[in-house]
Amino acid sequence: MKSFGSDNHSGVHPSILAALAAANEGHCPAYGDDPHTERLKAELKRRFGCADSCVVFNGTGANVLALKVLTDSWNAVICAATAHIQVDECGAPEKHTGCKLLTVETPDGKLTPERVRPLLHGFGFQHHAQPRVISISQPTELGTLYTLEEMRALAGLAHAHGMYLHVDGARLANALAATGCTPEEMTRGCGADAVSLGGTKNGLMVGEAVLFFREELCGAVMYERKQMTQLASKMRFVSAQLNAYLEGDLYIRLAERSNRAAAYLAERLERIPQVRITQPVQTNAVFAVLPAAVRERLMREYCFYIWNEETGEVRWMTSFDTERVDVDAFADRIEALCRE
Amino acid sequence: MKSFGSDNHSGVHPSILAALAAANEGHCPAYGDDPHTERLKAELKRRFGCADSCVVFNGTGANVLALKVLTDSWNAVICAATAHIQVDECGAPEKHTGCKLLTVETPDGKLTPERVRPLLHGFGFQHHAQPRVISISQPTELGTLYTLEEMRALAGLAHAHGMYLHVDGARLANALAATGCTPEEMTRGCGADAVSLGGTKNGLMVGEAVLFFREELCGAVMYERKQMTQLASKMRFVSAQLNAYLEGDLYIRLAERSNRAAAYLAERLERIPQVRITQPVQTNAVFAVLPAAVRERLMREYCFYIWNEETGEVRWMTSFDTERVDVDAFADRIEALCRE
Amino acid sequence: MKSFGSDNHSGVHPSILAALAAANEGHCPAYGDDPHTERLKAELKRRFGCADSCVVFNGTGANVLALKVLTDSWNAVICAATAHIQVDECGAPEKHTGCKLLTVETPDGKLTPERVRPLLHGFGFQHHAQPRVISISQPTELGTLYTLEEMRALAGLAHAHGMYLHVDGARLANALAATGCTPEEMTRGCGADAVSLGGTKNGLMVGEAVLFFREELCGAVMYERKQMTQLASKMRFVSAQLNAYLEGDLYIRLAERSNRAAAYLAERLERIPQVRITQPVQTNAVFAVLPAAVRERLMREYCFYIWNEETGEVRWMTSFDTERVDVDAFADRIEALCRE
Amino acid sequence: MKSFGSDNHSGVHPSILAALAAANEGHCPAYGDDPHTERLKAELKRRFGCADSCVVFNGTGANVLALKVLTDSWNAVICAATAHIQVDECGAPEKHTGCKLLTVETPDGKLTPERVRPLLHGFGFQHHAQPRVISISQPTELGTLYTLEEMRALAGLAHAHGMYLHVDGARLANALAATGCTPEEMTRGCGADAVSLGGTKNGLMVGEAVLFFREELCGAVMYERKQMTQLASKMRFVSAQLNAYLEGDLYIRLAERSNRAAAYLAERLERIPQVRITQPVQTNAVFAVLPAAVRERLMREYCFYIWNEETGEVRWMTSFDTERVDVDAFADRIEALCRE
Repeated sequence: MKSFGSDNHSGVHPSILAALAAANEGHCPAYGDDPHTERLKAELKRRFGCADSCVVFNGTGANVLALKVLTDSWNAVICAATAHIQVDECGAPEKHTGCKLLTVETPDGKLTPERVRPLLHGFGFQHHAQPRVISISQPTELGTLYTLEEMRALAGLAHAHGMYLHVDGARLANALAATGCTPEEMTRGCGADAVSLGGTKNGLMVGEAVLFFREELCGAVMYERKQMTQLASKMRFVSAQLNAYLEGDLYIRLAERSNRAAAYLAERLERIPQVRITQPVQTNAVFAVLPAAVRERLMREYCFYIWNEETGEVRWMTSFDTERVDVDAFADRIEALCRE
Repeated sequence: MKSFGSDNHSGVHPSILAALAAANEGHCPAYGDDPHTERLKAELKRRFGCADSCVVFNGTGANVLALKVLTDSWNAVICAATAHIQVDECGAPEKHTGCKLLTVETPDGKLTPERVRPLLHGFGFQHHAQPRVISISQPTELGTLYTLEEMRALAGLAHAHGMYLHVDGARLANALAATGCTPEEMTRGCGADAVSLGGTKNGLMVGEAVLFFREELCGAVMYERKQMTQLASKMRFVSAQLNAYLEGDLYIRLAERSNRAAAYLAERLERIPQVRITQPVQTNAVFAVLPAAVRERLMREYCFYIWNEETGEVRWMTSFDTERVDVDAFADRIEALCRE
Repeated sequence: MKSFGSDNHSGVHPSILAALAAANEGHCPAYGDDPHTERLKAELKRRFGCADSCVVFNGTGANVLALKVLTDSWNAVICAATAHIQVDECGAPEKHTGCKLLTVETPDGKLTPERVRPLLHGFGFQHHAQPRVISISQPTELGTLYTLEEMRALAGLAHAHGMYLHVDGARLANALAATGCTPEEMTRGCGADAVSLGGTKNGLMVGEAVLFFREELCGAVMYERKQMTQLASKMRFVSAQLNAYLEGDLYIRLAERSNRAAAYLAERLERIPQVRITQPVQTNAVFAVLPAAVRERLMREYCFYIWNEETGEVRWMTSFDTERVDVDAFADRIEALCRE
Repeated sequence: MKSFGSDNHSGVHPSILAALAAANEGHCPAYGDDPHTERLKAELKRRFGCADSCVVFNGTGANVLALKVLTDSWNAVICAATAHIQVDECGAPEKHTGCKLLTVETPDGKLTPERVRPLLHGFGFQHHAQPRVISISQPTELGTLYTLEEMRALAGLAHAHGMYLHVDGARLANALAATGCTPEEMTRGCGADAVSLGGTKNGLMVGEAVLFFREELCGAVMYERKQMTQLASKMRFVSAQLNAYLEGDLYIRLAERSNRAAAYLAERLERIPQVRITQPVQTNAVFAVLPAAVRERLMREYCFYIWNEETGEVRWMTSFDTERVDVDAFADRIEALCRE
């Protein structure tokens, strides 16, 4: 049975598994001095226009590494109150960077210059954690999307204050698939300074990348990664996954599938009067409110998260391998429970 | 061509790859709530007698997590001057724990009560980082082994001072294979409080475990792991590797192979008068001094580390897949270069 | 000219200076092993009912030490969005403890169980920084006061969740003076687990204390203080100030004076129609909104903070040495500027 | 009775007390925006040739602030095994900076290029904490002195490797007094990049300064100091002490006194055959070995530290107010005990 709990409940795409087997040829140097990693770095540069990149194990590792490179300990990072770095990383950003996270309430997970601006004060005041980074998620934790123009506006705001823009792209492929933008358009083209590029939630076994878009940020990355415990010894096996992921735009095609499944789920749910979708379904997430009794019975059969304990809002995610038939089974079940 | 540079230059054992493929069945919960991880934890408990265990990505992650759980920031950790936590982790232990590392010079990488005792002072003195952990590597970074009695003596010394014994077992399988001890004998039986259990250097793709032997240490482990960025989302794929690794004692059998290859390499080298082996070859490492000119020419063909810049001592490691023929080729080449 | 900018713009009370001179007799041991510190600890225990206490240099040091003792790095601290630890300590709490600060918007700087409760979730969920401390300021940064009952309710809420109550009492004397409560009633009696007790803002030169109310918290305090760089070497000179401060309840009498000056300032301002007081004046702070032009001209003559850039709200503080005549001069000037 | 335990067992010089009383005039801005601090900064610049300076509370604060400004978390700091930052700060440097301390055994507390050079390796190797600072104490913890040439050689070595030289000058005045060098000669003139300038051990109540000698290091200092909890609110009272300290070279004159007292103590001890002085007496410390029975009886009457538990070596310090008669009383007592 397919889970709608998270896109990391799914397994590994067959091409990725095949790439792992193919990479298992003889000996090669560890810690990144291997041809797979070399190829990956070139490929990321070519596609995203980044100055440098590095491979890490997981999304928290990617985000925290990006923030550590962008900040000094006396800085502040501005993010949405719903951001993964705020809500789901057990304080890892604070612990590793020493920085304060300044959060912004939003209806849709999206920062805007208007919402950020009130936090852009206290520059030069020694008592105040100095704002250094605006961190956004694309797509957001609520599955919503920034337009390129919105991203550019935030990057512009950041740069006008001597700050950086970080993009948590744990699901960046879903944003690319949904908009048809090129990877470079959505990162370097928008003024992003560092991007966490997700893989695990979109068909990889283990592996993410962090992209840096300014030469001056790159010198310390390898030491920061090592000290953060994110340096893979047999790195070829992470890089090989990412190479297969980019190859022939597999990552876009996988994200298209999960986006499509979410769209179809939304379509099915819209026909159920007891269910109210609470966020625009723009990628592979569906947020909804449904009768408490239905929700509870459904949770006995399916594993998923209650997003908001107070409103009972739930989050349903689709994966690269969520089929139409899986959505139908799930929607049918909700429908049936609603009818009872 | 097989590398003698490190045991992480090798790839993945076929059984491990097969286990990865087998684990790739449908959806299952992430972050450790999967049957593979559940089975692994039970298996580790059964074999090592630990109170609890957890899966992490890599050796530095394992060591740092163990130390973070065992310490407060105002503590000190005592280790050999050659310890991985001192030499090869880019200051990760200090950064994550806040602790001071107190190092002990040794001829063979082994702590002894005599060498440790001078550091056991300043208890209760507020200016002094309070010693909390004795951390040993079994086998050591120099490939040498502690006897069970030696380990017990260090554990006893630690416990007598209200301290803990941590064992960096990145290559614990090699120690078990070399001595024939059971895993429990070499961990719980020796009084170890936390053990880093390696996998990656012995045929895994990515995956280590940390074992805790006291109930009172276990409560915070999951939060520490998450905050340290060492929580795998699709954990089943790490746990499945470790399950296959333990299954039928594969880990012992792989370690036997690399130990045997090192023993054979030593045997071959002993016949070359220009080469002097500098440490007892007890596991899968051979340390040696050879003529500088030979060393330099050899390094153009083979990748390996100079261990000591001053003496020119080198380190050669064998892997689970190092065959007799690989050793012969390598030793032949050294022999030929020595003859020139 | 007296400042209304902050209560640390004032100098040192003559009795404190005299105590410094008196303590300057011959040699005595450093780092707290002196009779002044011994007497202080006994005195604090007697008055507040604390299990132990320690002397630090400043308010940030006091707060951060308290929080470091109460938390593990994977914890969260809940505080008002206006709290000093959130707004005025340049991220020191995050840097030193590794914890996340979770902030609560309030109209008056006061937490309530209702406002805190929504943050009391995610216990046992490894992705979530685990709430460990409710931190309140008494009086608040807005000069308002908790009743004992309100404090007890928050302590009860904290304890019911296995959490602690920390009280930032940088101006606790002002709260005591305003309410007539005994020190023990307002700390131990309310269920406080740790209290930062201010001195510098109320007539001391340099010196604060941290009080701990549970035996099990006291063991690590001296190491934490030292590692935090808050251990005074010639501690007798800090303790002597605090002894003189407590002697004959000097601290209460000084706070009464600054409270009285603020009350009188409020009284005077209430008669100026262009000025609107925005918070109840319960201690030694007056928050007000006044015409922008008046504010700007006033700031050329007097140094004070704009509290809220958007509304133009300002903060005026009175000190232990603010006289009626100083208030009159200040209020007269505002009146005159308003009339122009 | 005067203590020979530490130079912080003494009190405050009368001129310093007078300066405190004089600074207690009316209100003035806090946190360094006061005329005393302004004057101090100008004076330090004029005398030491530093680019910027800042006031802190204590020696650990000074050292840790200097190191935090000079380093990234993945750096290493090289120091003598006897350095205060290694031995006496409860791990504060590691906790605050995240760096590893690499220690060098020395006979006399002094680093030399020869002793440092073996640690200058692993540059560019990601596993290795990258050396960034050579930290020396002038005078050393053993009371010995570097010549200017020796300091320049270490600075040159540091700079040749892209590293910095930090000087822990907790007793720099004693070094200046002993050598007759100007402050600028011994700091900027030697290539020092950051200097901790002590005051408390030489007649101040509380107060040290940190001097930075490169413009590019100065931008973050105020935030680092605040976040480290070392920002004094009523800073005028710390700066006023330091101003009085520099005024008319009081600091040199006080150090001359303690140096002279130590020299006289050494002179007296040399006549006692049972006592062996173990380090050259160049400043205000005398290290010696004496019969265990004598030492133990002496410790019942006088408070001082056993420096080396194994050899029984003790440390005796003299203070700015140690008189010839105090030395005589102490030496007489030792003599008498030796005779018994």
